[in-house]
Amino acid sequence: MNCYALGIDFGTLSARAALVSVADGAVAASASHDYPHGVMSHTLPCGKPLGPGWALQHPMDYLQALEAIVPAVLKKAGVRGDQVRAIGVDFTTSTTLPTLADGTPLCTLPEFLHEPNAYVKLWKHHADSQARHIESIAREMGISWLHNTGGRISPEWPLPKLMQILEECPALFDKTDLYLEAGDWIVWQLTGQFSRSASYADSKNFHENGYPPPAFFEKVHPRFAGILDHQFRGPVLPLVSCAGILTERMAEKLHLPAGIPVAPAMVDSHAGAPGAGVDGAGILLSALGTSACHILMDEKNLDITGIAAKGMEGIVPGLCTYEANQSMGEVLAWFLDHACPARCLQDAQAQGLSLHQYMNEKAALLPPGGRGLIALDWFNGNRSILVDSRLSGMLLGLTLRTQPEEIYRALMEASAYTMRTILENYEHQGLPIRKIIAVGGVARKSPLLMQIISDVTGREISVSAAKEGPAQGVAIVAAAGTGLFPDLPSAIRAMGQGAEKVYRPGSWQTQYEQLYREFIRLHDYFGRGENEIMHWLSSMH
Amino acid sequence: MNCYALGIDFGTLSARAALVSVADGAVAASASHDYPHGVMSHTLPCGKPLGPGWALQHPMDYLQALEAIVPAVLKKAGVRGDQVRAIGVDFTTSTTLPTLADGTPLCTLPEFLHEPNAYVKLWKHHADSQARHIESIAREMGISWLHNTGGRISPEWPLPKLMQILEECPALFDKTDLYLEAGDWIVWQLTGQFSRSASYADSKNFHENGYPPPAFFEKVHPRFAGILDHQFRGPVLPLVSCAGILTERMAEKLHLPAGIPVAPAMVDSHAGAPGAGVDGAGILLSALGTSACHILMDEKNLDITGIAAKGMEGIVPGLCTYEANQSMGEVLAWFLDHACPARCLQDAQAQGLSLHQYMNEKAALLPPGGRGLIALDWFNGNRSILVDSRLSGMLLGLTLRTQPEEIYRALMEASAYTMRTILENYEHQGLPIRKIIAVGGVARKSPLLMQIISDVTGREISVSAAKEGPAQGVAIVAAAGTGLFPDLPSAIRAMGQGAEKVYRPGSWQTQYEQLYREFIRLHDYFGRGENEIMHWLSSMH
Repeated sequence: MNCYALGIDFGTLSARAALVSVADGAVAASASHDYPHGVMSHTLPCGKPLGPGWALQHPMDYLQALEAIVPAVLKKAGVRGDQVRAIGVDFTTSTTLPTLADGTPLCTLPEFLHEPNAYVKLWKHHADSQARHIESIAREMGISWLHNTGGRISPEWPLPKLMQILEECPALFDKTDLYLEAGDWIVWQLTGQFSRSASYADSKNFHENGYPPPAFFEKVHPRFAGILDHQFRGPVLPLVSCAGILTERMAEKLHLPAGIPVAPAMVDSHAGAPGAGVDGAGILLSALGTSACHILMDEKNLDITGIAAKGMEGIVPGLCTYEANQSMGEVLAWFLDHACPARCLQDAQAQGLSLHQYMNEKAALLPPGGRGLIALDWFNGNRSILVDSRLSGMLLGLTLRTQPEEIYRALMEASAYTMRTILENYEHQGLPIRKIIAVGGVARKSPLLMQIISDVTGREISVSAAKEGPAQGVAIVAAAGTGLFPDLPSAIRAMGQGAEKVYRPGSWQTQYEQLYREFIRLHDYFGRGENEIMHWLSSMH
Repeated sequence: MNCYALGIDFGTLSARAALVSVADGAVAASASHDYPHGVMSHTLPCGKPLGPGWALQHPMDYLQALEAIVPAVLKKAGVRGDQVRAIGVDFTTSTTLPTLADGTPLCTLPEFLHEPNAYVKLWKHHADSQARHIESIAREMGISWLHNTGGRISPEWPLPKLMQILEECPALFDKTDLYLEAGDWIVWQLTGQFSRSASYADSKNFHENGYPPPAFFEKVHPRFAGILDHQFRGPVLPLVSCAGILTERMAEKLHLPAGIPVAPAMVDSHAGAPGAGVDGAGILLSALGTSACHILMDEKNLDITGIAAKGMEGIVPGLCTYEANQSMGEVLAWFLDHACPARCLQDAQAQGLSLHQYMNEKAALLPPGGRGLIALDWFNGNRSILVDSRLSGMLLGLTLRTQPEEIYRALMEASAYTMRTILENYEHQGLPIRKIIAVGGVARKSPLLMQIISDVTGREISVSAAKEGPAQGVAIVAAAGTGLFPDLPSAIRAMGQGAEKVYRPGSWQTQYEQLYREFIRLHDYFGRGENEIMHWLSSMH
């Protein structure tokens, strides 16, 4: 009888389940379900408008998706519930919510239906001023955990987001019994047991063999004095472990038997690594999608700058996992939604192509730099290596003859330049990269962007055959954590996949060398303080 | 019996005639006609593709338009041909063509039908490398005429354009008996007499009480040794004068009696001034359309930098006329054509608005700088005050939330900032501006842009009631030049119009002060040599 591990990936717009064979890692089936409320960035469900920069979700969407995809994937695969031996979950992060002591999300209470702060704050919801305040306190007090983040506090993390609740809605803060990652909340819903995954706590919430002293939180805000025994309380479990077993109640909803072991939740950006066969040091796992995440493991635990996070509880126990991020698909999506003229849409429809395919075909005919256009891709700030959410995007070289496909290509090229800054940042600080494996929608669907990345970085890029990405990877982690393998590297060797395509640097390399130098000059001018205009403009948001 | 002066304005896309009462300047009727070939920037009529930067016209389009609009305007006004006492013509400049000795355009000869250089080169066709070469020679030889242009040679002018013919098609150069402004060519067609207007020669072609010595032209190119007796020959007439009388042949085509006096052609950007009542020093005439031209007269003849041209033969004899230019409507048109998404077009159509109106309404709801966006409007280079056609446009402050109307507004604001650089450039060099009068399509159709200009510059802007702009103005010049008035100021006082609307600085002024300072910092960084990236990118065109 074949045995399976079930991996469930909670993404930005949908959740996806994959049933993965424990024997060889083959995916028997997958299923996905969109969140009914998607990302709420303009209004709450009640119609109340949201300010700029808000990005919320509804927690009940996650349960609805879960109850749709798990029965669906079993049915599609023709697999019985008792063949499922382990469940793993990964989730976008930091995607956080306030709850009562029993896990009830505060946004479901009638008194907070109209309060934006009561909803799930998606990773890309930024609590900027709070993050800056926390960063200054953490530096002042020499909080050692900052070594894991290059000295920066991201506005995406739980503490800034909780502080926003305290500042904007004290009554809601008073009611907040627990503040937690949505990934931890889902595992709680599955198992009936509350715990926190070290995958989140270590990379986003000051945890590393314990938390900083309470004095730090108190100095951030007097109301945070008891936070470690209150909103941030709870056991922190290692990633490769068992968080509990599936409850009767949830088992019934998911068409599974009760008692299946569930692993702690995993940072979504790390979850692609095991499926792609990343089992050791020096292999860069680039998860290229809406945003892109570049994960690197190394035996060395170095304090390096310009990264988003690092930690010993990332993927393979015993190796330090480093993470650097950038925007990617979302910048191209912005262009297609907000800056691509009607005639392109008409032409695409006439040719039976999606707008994305159509623009790719047009952009592929251009030389590097088009007819002289260059961009900074900081449409959602620079997440690495400058780690500055107040930076913004730029297009330079526009003329009356500039065509939409030139802008599209310039935005792709800017993504590739930013990726190169990330690679160089790792290597210049002592973390060699011997191989790059790419996963995610961009890696599979944008050959043009992949070739540009290969040319700009001067490196081979292998696209993993693991098509289910994080869902596939987290199934492997769950298989290891629940005892089906002796350790994670063994599970990866058994269940991880190879490359389905390799991109190699080609004839564009020379031209991109010069364009990259010009990019870096703009990058440093606007990004390193010589001209503060982007910070000033961001204050107008 | 009412008497009329007929003004004919040859614009970039169409020609327009206005019948103007000599008694009070009232317009009896107007008529316009689009050029069948419009602007040829991608292909010749035969389908032959053109390279980037080409902008050609067909000379027969001008005659076709002339023969359509003159009979039409007479008919619409119910005016008899013998009531028309003077004809004036203005034309875009430098819009130039090569002809045989009898005025036959070379592009109409079978041998040159497929030669792009044989067609009319529109003002915005740039002969960049040739202009740079000529400028270096002119500076080296200390050619005094350079004082009229702030030391610069524009790639729009006749000599660079003729040099392009010589370099790219020597056989065509051999056949070029005359090289002239299209405005001069039209007056030749009307009168049968060839002459050149000082309005063009003084501002665009090295003339100022004569030409530079032949040695200069020879040093530019040995084949230019005899140019003053050959391709550039011909009498140069003052603007306020009579160039000849209407021929029998042309009179018949235009439904007019032969013998009506015709004035020398006028630079189109100067032609708005008389109709708007600009009769003396210190009044800035801003002609705001596809591009914008800012004309200022002063008793002082100063050698100032950053302008497009100056000369004593501009408008009112005895006053020095200064001219500075910028792109304006064409940048907004680029946005609407190439960067405005389908949903805006759909919404506009649903509301029965033009896309321009729709975007104006949306942009008007935004604060200055939108949600933090700033632009450089150099989509067609910077024509004043940097006078550098290799500069290009920029958008800075883009985020995933940036909406199309923010970009539209940022482009408008950049136009206003550039206009302020032009005003300050005049005043800092000793030419005070006591009043601003605006004419042109933008002045009448874009209240939002007009208010932004008033706020950014901190000045009152009067929009002239002279709706026919250049056609109306050139009719006044013709009335003066052909003896209906003792001099041009007398004609302007009798026939010029007042203001129909006045924009005054409002509550946005303070915010624009700060935005302007940031604009200037970017302007100087990219425009004055600190970062040469735009020059480098322009070499990729």
